[in-house]
Amino acid sequence: MKDQNKYMIEALEGAKMAAAQGEVPVGAVLVNGLTGEIIARAFNCTEQNNDPTAHAEILVIRQGGKVLGAPRLVDCDLYVTLEPCPMCAAAISFARIRRLYYGAYDPKSGGVEHGPRMFSHAALHHLPEFYGGIHESECGALMTEFFRTKR
Amino acid sequence: MKDQNKYMIEALEGAKMAAAQGEVPVGAVLVNGLTGEIIARAFNCTEQNNDPTAHAEILVIRQGGKVLGAPRLVDCDLYVTLEPCPMCAAAISFARIRRLYYGAYDPKSGGVEHGPRMFSHAALHHLPEFYGGIHESECGALMTEFFRTKR
Repeated sequence: MKDQNKYMIEALEGAKMAAAQGEVPVGAVLVNGLTGEIIARAFNCTEQNNDPTAHAEILVIRQGGKVLGAPRLVDCDLYVTLEPCPMCAAAISFARIRRLYYGAYDPKSGGVEHGPRMFSHAALHHLPEFYGGIHESECGALMTEFFRTKR
Repeated sequence: MKDQNKYMIEALEGAKMAAAQGEVPVGAVLVNGLTGEIIARAFNCTEQNNDPTAHAEILVIRQGGKVLGAPRLVDCDLYVTLEPCPMCAAAISFARIRRLYYGAYDPKSGGVEHGPRMFSHAALHHLPEFYGGIHESECGALMTEFFRTKR
């Protein structure tokens, strides 16, 4: 649990950088689950990249593939400050992520424990273990504050 | 219908290039729905890019965002040779694609008319119109042939 907190705090740093750049504040970290080494860090960049797919999870997976030289990130764990959306949940499965840890739950747009509950579908052949609610309040507060200032 | 055939034939060219490079043969074309201009072309590159998210649809959307200088591809139509998976279906919604045209149905891994049927979920706020089965047999034959040679 100590390590999980440590990595989520790293992901939170990413989320704060996103917010400072006017992006939806979501950050992610990819970790080698066997050694504990951080392989990649990313935060949501959809606006600045003009890329609707540039969610933190997609970017960290793409970086991870480059670093590891493989499209399948075997034995890697992914930490992200918000419950992944359905697009990212499917990408996490395709990437063969071992364990997914996430912060705030997203009842409106989440796709892991809400909406299409992606990991309950046979269309996805690899199912990661997943754990939500890690540093939930801090992760969620960033989102709440961001959307409050947008109104 | 004439135009839809024309664009799907372009997407099929992409799928054939993918097959020639040992990639799952799926091709996609992004079209300005108002002018008919082709904005971007892509094919599946997951293996050569070491990127599990590099499906034809994701790549064509990312290129489209670059070309248009916007993360929302308003009034654009997307042609792809295979029913999009759940990841791509969600990306198509985020990109605000106007109409989706696809070739072969994918009962096993598709996410539009199979599996999680992404466009039936409230988690996705934008719902494109979608039309499947365009040049279905030619699109499907490429896939069948590809996986036959892999066995």
